[in-house]
Amino acid sequence: MIKVKIIGATGYGGIGLIELLTQHPEAEISALVAREDVGKRISEIYPHLEGFCDLPILDAEDPRAQEAPADVVVFSTPDRVGMYQAGDVLAKGAKVLDFSGDFRFTTQEAYADYATRHGKDPVHAAPELLGKNAYGLAELHREAIKAAPVVGNPGCFACSCILGLAPAAHARLFDPLSVICDCKTGVSGAGKKLAATFHYPARYENMNAYKLAGHQHVCEVERELSLQYGQDVRLTFTAHVLPLCRGIMSTLYAQMDKALSEEDAVALYREFYKDSPFVRVYGSKAPIGTNCVQRTNFCDLVVSVDARVNRLRIVSYIDNLMKGQAGSALQNINLMTGLPETLGLMRSGMYP
Amino acid sequence: MIKVKIIGATGYGGIGLIELLTQHPEAEISALVAREDVGKRISEIYPHLEGFCDLPILDAEDPRAQEAPADVVVFSTPDRVGMYQAGDVLAKGAKVLDFSGDFRFTTQEAYADYATRHGKDPVHAAPELLGKNAYGLAELHREAIKAAPVVGNPGCFACSCILGLAPAAHARLFDPLSVICDCKTGVSGAGKKLAATFHYPARYENMNAYKLAGHQHVCEVERELSLQYGQDVRLTFTAHVLPLCRGIMSTLYAQMDKALSEEDAVALYREFYKDSPFVRVYGSKAPIGTNCVQRTNFCDLVVSVDARVNRLRIVSYIDNLMKGQAGSALQNINLMTGLPETLGLMRSGMYP
Amino acid sequence: MIKVKIIGATGYGGIGLIELLTQHPEAEISALVAREDVGKRISEIYPHLEGFCDLPILDAEDPRAQEAPADVVVFSTPDRVGMYQAGDVLAKGAKVLDFSGDFRFTTQEAYADYATRHGKDPVHAAPELLGKNAYGLAELHREAIKAAPVVGNPGCFACSCILGLAPAAHARLFDPLSVICDCKTGVSGAGKKLAATFHYPARYENMNAYKLAGHQHVCEVERELSLQYGQDVRLTFTAHVLPLCRGIMSTLYAQMDKALSEEDAVALYREFYKDSPFVRVYGSKAPIGTNCVQRTNFCDLVVSVDARVNRLRIVSYIDNLMKGQAGSALQNINLMTGLPETLGLMRSGMYP
Amino acid sequence: MIKVKIIGATGYGGIGLIELLTQHPEAEISALVAREDVGKRISEIYPHLEGFCDLPILDAEDPRAQEAPADVVVFSTPDRVGMYQAGDVLAKGAKVLDFSGDFRFTTQEAYADYATRHGKDPVHAAPELLGKNAYGLAELHREAIKAAPVVGNPGCFACSCILGLAPAAHARLFDPLSVICDCKTGVSGAGKKLAATFHYPARYENMNAYKLAGHQHVCEVERELSLQYGQDVRLTFTAHVLPLCRGIMSTLYAQMDKALSEEDAVALYREFYKDSPFVRVYGSKAPIGTNCVQRTNFCDLVVSVDARVNRLRIVSYIDNLMKGQAGSALQNINLMTGLPETLGLMRSGMYP
Repeated sequence: MIKVKIIGATGYGGIGLIELLTQHPEAEISALVAREDVGKRISEIYPHLEGFCDLPILDAEDPRAQEAPADVVVFSTPDRVGMYQAGDVLAKGAKVLDFSGDFRFTTQEAYADYATRHGKDPVHAAPELLGKNAYGLAELHREAIKAAPVVGNPGCFACSCILGLAPAAHARLFDPLSVICDCKTGVSGAGKKLAATFHYPARYENMNAYKLAGHQHVCEVERELSLQYGQDVRLTFTAHVLPLCRGIMSTLYAQMDKALSEEDAVALYREFYKDSPFVRVYGSKAPIGTNCVQRTNFCDLVVSVDARVNRLRIVSYIDNLMKGQAGSALQNINLMTGLPETLGLMRSGMYP
Repeated sequence: MIKVKIIGATGYGGIGLIELLTQHPEAEISALVAREDVGKRISEIYPHLEGFCDLPILDAEDPRAQEAPADVVVFSTPDRVGMYQAGDVLAKGAKVLDFSGDFRFTTQEAYADYATRHGKDPVHAAPELLGKNAYGLAELHREAIKAAPVVGNPGCFACSCILGLAPAAHARLFDPLSVICDCKTGVSGAGKKLAATFHYPARYENMNAYKLAGHQHVCEVERELSLQYGQDVRLTFTAHVLPLCRGIMSTLYAQMDKALSEEDAVALYREFYKDSPFVRVYGSKAPIGTNCVQRTNFCDLVVSVDARVNRLRIVSYIDNLMKGQAGSALQNINLMTGLPETLGLMRSGMYP
Repeated sequence: MIKVKIIGATGYGGIGLIELLTQHPEAEISALVAREDVGKRISEIYPHLEGFCDLPILDAEDPRAQEAPADVVVFSTPDRVGMYQAGDVLAKGAKVLDFSGDFRFTTQEAYADYATRHGKDPVHAAPELLGKNAYGLAELHREAIKAAPVVGNPGCFACSCILGLAPAAHARLFDPLSVICDCKTGVSGAGKKLAATFHYPARYENMNAYKLAGHQHVCEVERELSLQYGQDVRLTFTAHVLPLCRGIMSTLYAQMDKALSEEDAVALYREFYKDSPFVRVYGSKAPIGTNCVQRTNFCDLVVSVDARVNRLRIVSYIDNLMKGQAGSALQNINLMTGLPETLGLMRSGMYP
Repeated sequence: MIKVKIIGATGYGGIGLIELLTQHPEAEISALVAREDVGKRISEIYPHLEGFCDLPILDAEDPRAQEAPADVVVFSTPDRVGMYQAGDVLAKGAKVLDFSGDFRFTTQEAYADYATRHGKDPVHAAPELLGKNAYGLAELHREAIKAAPVVGNPGCFACSCILGLAPAAHARLFDPLSVICDCKTGVSGAGKKLAATFHYPARYENMNAYKLAGHQHVCEVERELSLQYGQDVRLTFTAHVLPLCRGIMSTLYAQMDKALSEEDAVALYREFYKDSPFVRVYGSKAPIGTNCVQRTNFCDLVVSVDARVNRLRIVSYIDNLMKGQAGSALQNINLMTGLPETLGLMRSGMYP
């Protein structure tokens, strides 16, 4: 039985992973660590877990937390937490899965670019681990994830955009300067931290673009697409927040220099993802919406072409808290511990 | 492996049961029957099922439907469908689980009262089965359900009200003429049939009481509570529809003739449900909402007393499509086929 | 032109009154006072007001705030703010309209009961004004409001319950110990203060009862209904919060000792409110919902009788921020300043 | 007093115009015509209008409808209704305002292109009126609307896109083949006609792109932008539907061939709209969302530039039923009848 310790257990990412692990046949939770609500049972805070996970929330310094056995330690923490603790975890023989930006980049330069862009200290605290880490998007880095001691779980927007454009980038179908990512997210993407803009009355029946001056996810997307393309991809990214709880819909545009039929584009995408059980590819007439992927680990891609102007258009649907966070995390944990990639994840959503 | 055939597979009740059965370790679907979309794969209509259930939708007369093996045939159909076909099913050696009002009553008189109240033909078409059937609320009729050839799955409002008041009725805590059931439901309770009042723009940011002149669920609730009480219980029932998709919250009031502390009331409820794994009982300070039970088979009961006037007040929370429909159905199927009651159902919800 | 100064201008109550006053033909805003965002224009914080109200937000001590002319000073502030400042306002020749509980009661004893019930200091700071003040529900206290120097605007739940039961209380139709108020509110009723329970993801697709141990609105409702009845009315009150922004639906039950037809009940209600232009009375078949009153000053009452048990049932619909707050406030300002009661308020809502 | 007759009075467009006209100081409704609910009062169907508009719904052939005086007859009807009746209306001396695509194009060729694109008969039934008609977007065609006997009210998506890009097109800031319109709409944009995809449970917590193969609004947008540009503009248009009731947010992208600062872009837009009171222009840091324009006639434009790739990005916010339909309609009626453009329309929204 694989043991998982969760640091930052009371945020949305932590809760999502707890929910998944209580249903997992080969993994179990060894300890929950958080800074708030220490001493309470997790099911006092989240009564839906009553009877499923009644573990106490421990302080990081609590010996029960320190000594809990772990094959994988998950940092469901903000930027610049995991990087300070990863070394100790590795020294104890466990692997590290980090939800923040700390281990999404494999060079100090790439990290510095990312950190600078959203106003963080550009100096990485564990540079010796960069290069040994893997970017935790299994569809692109399956083998690296299996081998790496440290994995950086992808950002939710980034996950949807990269999966949506990777096949076309790999095939060099488009002009690498022409990419536009128009992304729409439900409110849970911002986490559980209170903010005036996410107060229910302010958000109900309201939608808006935000952070128009720049968004940290751009780095991840450009880096991964550039890797696929073999040349620098540069894109315009717009984030919008909408009155749903869960779900990301990213509409992705790229200019092609010649005609391509929708059928051929669909075929190319299906071939690219033929070994990736959580990606489903559809043509433009399929009735796909975020409700097809909600509360699941699937990414549904709708492929179309605006033939009048040879523009490729992909609509990428994920659940931001599942494929965009806890689901990808469990997929990574499975890979990191030698379990089947889909274990504990192969469920449909529920309709309606 | 238990075989289940579903008649009326494309409604919310049918879909919900399909979703559960695709995850069930000991049961599987043998055929899907419906009147619409015949010939299509179910996953063409509901793409979230892609890869989980890709069975074709069959016409009732299709030999593949007729000949499909079945331990249980589920009628997820409107009133007065199952009663005409139940006999044939039994003759083939299968059991019947019906989602409508057809088999919720065990006498012709009780059925006639129910049918009359909502404008249906009061004559039951299979009177020879009444008395052999069981009311499919496992918490009150577990043994009868195991034995009965025909089970009538409860109505969603009725389920929430009966579970909320049965312990107090059984203990004769209240005046049997004083009961008020103030029930609030999400919109999915009305099913997938289109109606102007459930058109999204009309329902968004709107709530209202409806059917103030009478509601068919009253019969079920009065009958079951009277059975528990040993005397006629008569109640006022108000249904309200609110802009959620899933969830029922029923606030239940009953006048007691003497003081009772909340602690004693909670203890009495916990004792009553001590062998019922899907009922959780809380005092008035627990932070329970419909999100604690959403997409699960749980019924969460919050027990309180207005001590100034000796009024018992129970708030009963269920998911109308799970404990109120497909979840109870699977619980019944488990019991009817000798499987453990909780098999395939013991999952927490997902937050948020 | 009537001058209105608003203290606490940036909360929902203040904003609502600003919106109404920008459309009022005979009144205008002389100053906006608040503790947050001092120095900014109100339309920087609330861009929907751009071009309609661009006044600066002033500190209470700012001379521009102190010296702004005012016929009425509105305290859209929490409990125990207005009571300390009302005397000064009156000394300057203005009238006071207070949104909190400070001036909803006319005796020190009644205030102490209210304050105690929700954990506030029971000693009123301006006892010399109690008895001179009026309860600001125009439908019941029109003449007193015109004459009083200080008016206490009603609570939103209280407004819906009192309007719903006053005619029946006045006619002594029911047992005064039998009343149940089952109230459902949208989230804006809790104001703009952030709280985990009103964070969008936590509230979406979620409903719950709260404060089951007691709610401060009970005092107001019992006091006003007792006045109408001429005898003590005692009631059970349950508050529920639902995922809407605006709207209160209160379902009110009271036991009658003899039969009364719905027609007679409707007639009695219409007679009672025949001079109240903002109350509309309907029978049980009218398709009324909160969307009929949204963003308006109307209270729509649906009157029905459960004839099987002689129980009166009223469903009362208001917009909690309009008739439940800013709309009633403007209605009171009109009365206090000798303007027609409906001025600036006689608008329909918008559908859908 | 201007008289307005409304054909198709019971759809969302008709109701919206009724609501506005009941508040208009210089215009009134002379007759309401529809095919459904004939003989009922409009306020029986829409109780929020009770006391504001209680006119009967008339059949088109009813003499009261035929003989009702009218300065303007509004066709709030589907395509290919108004074109058959416009001639008669003009012959009686009234003007025509049509909500469909019938009079949005000024040549038979342009109409045929539009009609073909969404599967309608390409032959216009009143070709003699084409060329005399005006496109009813006041910000671009104010003088033409004043003079034209027939005005075609714009489509809601088109309105948001054209207002968002007209200044940049007029200034020839961008490559005319590079435009992308990524549009998001609330559900009311689809009108009151029932459809499975707009059933509340199917739409709640769901978002999707639709009509990926083409959308009729493209014609209008390309035509108007080409007129501003003086050269053919060709664009990719994607429509998305989201779980709100009202609101359109269109994110518009266009490739510039040289750098332009956000400040200069904002200045250019403000200059372009300096005489248009319903357009407000903001820089990228302003906290604008659809709630700033909801239930109002405003279009709020947020102007930004992705300087890394010289891409212009405009986010255009309107209420699809107001500036996108009934509000623009009243603005047009004011212009067509010589009234001030803003009469009856200059109101802020209500928050929250």
